[in-house]
Amino acid sequence: MKKLFIPFLLLIFLAGNTFSQKEKNEKSYITIADSIVKTAMTDQKGYAILGDLCKIGPRLSGSENSLKAIEWAMAKMISLGFDSVWLQPVMVPHWERGKTESAVIVSSNKFKNKKLAIAAFGGSVGTDLSKGITAKVIEIHSWAELTTKKQEVKDKIVFFNVPFDNSFPTSFPAYGKNVGYRVQGASEAAKHGAKGMILRSITSKNDNVPHVGVLHYTDSIPQVPAVAIGITDADFLSNALKKEPELKLQLKLSCKTLPEAQSYNVIGEMKGTEFPDQVIVIGGHFDSWDKGDGAHDDAAGCVQSMEVLDLFKRLQIKPKRTIRCVFFINEENGSRGGIAYGEFAAASKEKHLTAIESDRGAFTPQGFAVDKDSASFLKIGSWKNILERAGISWVKQGGSGVDVSYIKNAKCLIGYVPDSQRYFDYHHSANDIFTEVNPREFELGSAAMTVLVFLIDREGL
Amino acid sequence: MKKLFIPFLLLIFLAGNTFSQKEKNEKSYITIADSIVKTAMTDQKGYAILGDLCKIGPRLSGSENSLKAIEWAMAKMISLGFDSVWLQPVMVPHWERGKTESAVIVSSNKFKNKKLAIAAFGGSVGTDLSKGITAKVIEIHSWAELTTKKQEVKDKIVFFNVPFDNSFPTSFPAYGKNVGYRVQGASEAAKHGAKGMILRSITSKNDNVPHVGVLHYTDSIPQVPAVAIGITDADFLSNALKKEPELKLQLKLSCKTLPEAQSYNVIGEMKGTEFPDQVIVIGGHFDSWDKGDGAHDDAAGCVQSMEVLDLFKRLQIKPKRTIRCVFFINEENGSRGGIAYGEFAAASKEKHLTAIESDRGAFTPQGFAVDKDSASFLKIGSWKNILERAGISWVKQGGSGVDVSYIKNAKCLIGYVPDSQRYFDYHHSANDIFTEVNPREFELGSAAMTVLVFLIDREGL
Repeated sequence: MKKLFIPFLLLIFLAGNTFSQKEKNEKSYITIADSIVKTAMTDQKGYAILGDLCKIGPRLSGSENSLKAIEWAMAKMISLGFDSVWLQPVMVPHWERGKTESAVIVSSNKFKNKKLAIAAFGGSVGTDLSKGITAKVIEIHSWAELTTKKQEVKDKIVFFNVPFDNSFPTSFPAYGKNVGYRVQGASEAAKHGAKGMILRSITSKNDNVPHVGVLHYTDSIPQVPAVAIGITDADFLSNALKKEPELKLQLKLSCKTLPEAQSYNVIGEMKGTEFPDQVIVIGGHFDSWDKGDGAHDDAAGCVQSMEVLDLFKRLQIKPKRTIRCVFFINEENGSRGGIAYGEFAAASKEKHLTAIESDRGAFTPQGFAVDKDSASFLKIGSWKNILERAGISWVKQGGSGVDVSYIKNAKCLIGYVPDSQRYFDYHHSANDIFTEVNPREFELGSAAMTVLVFLIDREGL
Repeated sequence: MKKLFIPFLLLIFLAGNTFSQKEKNEKSYITIADSIVKTAMTDQKGYAILGDLCKIGPRLSGSENSLKAIEWAMAKMISLGFDSVWLQPVMVPHWERGKTESAVIVSSNKFKNKKLAIAAFGGSVGTDLSKGITAKVIEIHSWAELTTKKQEVKDKIVFFNVPFDNSFPTSFPAYGKNVGYRVQGASEAAKHGAKGMILRSITSKNDNVPHVGVLHYTDSIPQVPAVAIGITDADFLSNALKKEPELKLQLKLSCKTLPEAQSYNVIGEMKGTEFPDQVIVIGGHFDSWDKGDGAHDDAAGCVQSMEVLDLFKRLQIKPKRTIRCVFFINEENGSRGGIAYGEFAAASKEKHLTAIESDRGAFTPQGFAVDKDSASFLKIGSWKNILERAGISWVKQGGSGVDVSYIKNAKCLIGYVPDSQRYFDYHHSANDIFTEVNPREFELGSAAMTVLVFLIDREGL
């Protein structure tokens, strides 16, 4: 018995000791989490930086503005005193909207000269600028209906009038349901001889602001112009078509694709004091659509990521591991920045512990979605009491983010998940401006991300 | 052994059976919860009703508008087909702002004739309308400073310039820290001979809109006028005082307290089919301040409560217990409606199972705060998987709400807790209008409350 008895006691002792150490850590981590929250919420420093960035305007890949913003970002990271700041060169697609963009009802008894609120989708071809494209319009509500009516599509503009499905408790599934029309709609319509495509804006907001985004043309199918239409005018057009199915619409678009342009990921880091080769990446995408200022999408995610490092500095926390903030370029229409960083990570001798992405708007924190692996997921889940201090209610398995998904050798990928209810009010539209970002929501997000990075820095994965 | 063995098996069998019944219930409840969410989010019917209500304008207790709104509410409940709808008479305080409300710098070299954005606090006395009150201003930052400087206060206007403390992860603690200045500030200043009181608006929003609310005068201390000032002008006044401490301000207010007025709680119910004497109350307060439309505070809470009953009807769910929606009048400056309903509940032979209050704005659902008792708290907590379908992340012990707190004989009191980050951007101000309520956030709140009421209706407490 004696032999068995002693190790058993020892085991209890050791277990008790480990437990109390864990409790002690949790207590001290909670204290630090609370000061992170307090500092972020009180200073609102990241929010002020976001305001400065948004003054530059939209940051479409390849645009002059995007290069101005990249310069601004590099200078800002340097001024914040990060250990290293550098640009990672990336060639990006370069599409320009240009000045002309109109849709006018031209042949109609009742609705002649009515201008509709439209905006070309990114990547769309333009039209002849003097004549434009003039055609009848056919309203379609689903892929199935397109197939049924394919004989009627020829030489017409296909108007996909598919409402945003608000029935889900979060808003992303509704976007997921409709985004295919934006991406493939032009080619699917052109396959049957359509001359153009109009899509009801994919938005939860009941206004007349077109919401844009990227489209893809299918090889071997003629490329036809494609635009988003505001909700009010989508309803108007639908009603007009009921009264006058023969009305004609004239579309004039100056948009065009230019040769690929030189661009850059902007990277800044704080070197780890104990494990400098273990890297924690945190980032968002720096390009935006050319309507609004891309404030929520995704200036906010970038500036929050930058604020994570700055909060370490403000609170004089020296990271044990290397914390690297990455502003990925070109997420919206090419993901070249994400791909380039992924290649860099694959070739690097560093160990990418994790990469955290913030690209769902600057709303109140809800949770973290952990892509892989299960051990990391369990470990992060065990920090729930600490993460809760910054408003995080859950840690779930799920998708992380487009840009970080290219970092194939990271042990774990994480998506920051804020409340989604209002995201598609702003997404890819002129509504997405700085004044629509709430400072408390933004800063609590910065704090939540900082607490997570701090825990990973201290405890590893 | 045999004797022991059989009951043991029976026990396992029974336990297994109960467990599987519980699981079966949970599954069917989740299905119903999902249809509640889907219906609320898709129809946005409550949101449209909120829009109609807000068209009436603000609903200050005793005002003509409040009576119009009460009539509207009764007609609306009848049109929705509730089993009974009635008015519960309540006498309420009647304070009016009137047309004159100004604060102008009158004696100053640099700032003469500068008008400041102010609004009288509810219950404030007015001033002589031709001369007003003209006095020097002393800026005070805390109760402690008021005590230190009490000799300097005489014949001046005390300007409490206490910033909103954004440091907390939720916004209510910041309000809690400052609301005492609004409630007691006038009397505390007048105690030392002050002629008036100005308070920096208690708000998280950085604009120039005054945020009002009720004040209380202490008996035996002279009643002096008291106003809120917009944040921009609070900063302006503070800077002006640094440059010219001797400047004088003229305050003119037409506000006054009239005799108490007849008003009403509006009550509508669906009778329970099995336990009609067991009552589940759900409600908000129907009065509002007279700036904005009281959209978040608390038209939203009332309409959400009404929508709970309407969602039962739309989904053809017959309640087993009686579900009663109460629009409490006069929460803002007297709580007479809450008190009257509490007295009615105390005298009634019905059993009040619970009363749920929605009075924290129409933002994304977060949780339910359960006031008492522990058995109910545990039971509600056990429904987490079901409540989660409507965005509820937690059930905690905590404060329920002002109005339901008067229902002393309820087994359990519950507060609906949405996200708080933006609440004090709107609270008690002209910012609190219908267009600042997001339909998805509002409807998910209606759904969350309906799911909770449904579970209590089916399972009891």
